[in-house]
Amino acid sequence: MFELVGFDADDTLWRSQDYFDDAQARFEAIVGHYVDLADAQLHDRTLATERRNIRLFGYGVKGMVLSMIETAVAITDARISASDIHRLVVLGKEILQHPVELVPGIRAAVEAVAEHHPLVLITKGDLFHQEAKVRASGLSELFHRIEIVSEKDPPTYARVLNECGVAASAFVMVGNSLRSDIAPVLTLGGYGVHVPYHLTWALEAEADLGEDVTRMCTVSEPVNIAAAIRGFVR
Amino acid sequence: MFELVGFDADDTLWRSQDYFDDAQARFEAIVGHYVDLADAQLHDRTLATERRNIRLFGYGVKGMVLSMIETAVAITDARISASDIHRLVVLGKEILQHPVELVPGIRAAVEAVAEHHPLVLITKGDLFHQEAKVRASGLSELFHRIEIVSEKDPPTYARVLNECGVAASAFVMVGNSLRSDIAPVLTLGGYGVHVPYHLTWALEAEADLGEDVTRMCTVSEPVNIAAAIRGFVR
Repeated sequence: MFELVGFDADDTLWRSQDYFDDAQARFEAIVGHYVDLADAQLHDRTLATERRNIRLFGYGVKGMVLSMIETAVAITDARISASDIHRLVVLGKEILQHPVELVPGIRAAVEAVAEHHPLVLITKGDLFHQEAKVRASGLSELFHRIEIVSEKDPPTYARVLNECGVAASAFVMVGNSLRSDIAPVLTLGGYGVHVPYHLTWALEAEADLGEDVTRMCTVSEPVNIAAAIRGFVR
Repeated sequence: MFELVGFDADDTLWRSQDYFDDAQARFEAIVGHYVDLADAQLHDRTLATERRNIRLFGYGVKGMVLSMIETAVAITDARISASDIHRLVVLGKEILQHPVELVPGIRAAVEAVAEHHPLVLITKGDLFHQEAKVRASGLSELFHRIEIVSEKDPPTYARVLNECGVAASAFVMVGNSLRSDIAPVLTLGGYGVHVPYHLTWALEAEADLGEDVTRMCTVSEPVNIAAAIRGFVR
């Protein structure tokens, strides 16, 4: 029996990437008034700015908006109007206020796992926004502990497991991101249940699973999570 | 004997408000090219925008920059140039990269308290930036536990004390902000050592200490913190 089961939040418990992709489309529409989007390689340049800024901004909506503003100013040779820049700020505020929409079937899936294991929610990103979403989700009482972290890498998982007094070999992580939810836990000797989401941010798509794929499995629907956890041979 | 001593971080362990005040002065210089600052009541309007946005952005540099951009666009009737808006983003990036400068005497003061009590660092703001500052400070090994929280109110302190298994009456908090470090701990029945900093953000200056002032004291220098803690009669 596993002693602890971890759940990711964004795009595992509730919709998230949809809002970011929608923001990116609206960003492109705004900048498209100034430049030819294909010529400007807007998508690649936005991603490059985000990648460069993440070591300063971390993950989350506010950093995304600041990176969008920086990209828009550069790509338009500073021709973009103040009103259009303000629309980017408003776009960020709208994401921060969007209602939390649970992934279909996830409440029952989490409850099924909670019957047999203590649960920890491990999510990365902006502390303030993540706390607001946890509160709005109505799921927080199912979790023994909630960890909002700045990066989901092996040292972070090791710290959380250490604080919980659980060995990695007795831990399984459930999430949509191979890079953030599965690979680092496999590295530590733990287990992973991958539940792909229909959208993936480009910076989350890069994962090296190494040789440990026997300790992970992929399920297509939340309803199959509990059975996947039972199915691991430890 | 107190079972746990908490320390605030910004403006208690290291300089912080100086950078924000400097950013505000540079912000005013930029906007001053477009409007008469006194007529525009820039300072009051910036503060009003920050106060309105804090429920969405939380505390920290990224939210400050977004509020500055919003204020600048409004106050200039969208006449501010994209280049000048980009200077506000750069200004934020500079704060996020500033070196951590310890308050003079604070390392020795923390070490003196650590000889007799386990310590917890309790700081609010942006998770990513606070973690970076804790790492850069060289003080993290003195703390048993580090808590980065989104708001320093009585429920937050109650949660931290509960997780540490310590009663409020066995806890003393050391910090520069009456509103965030002292008042909420007094409310819970704990103790406070107020170490004023030479600068205070307007939104931190509002505090209601109630009737509990017998459980707090004010010291002018870090060197006096340990003695202040010893001096409380429980």
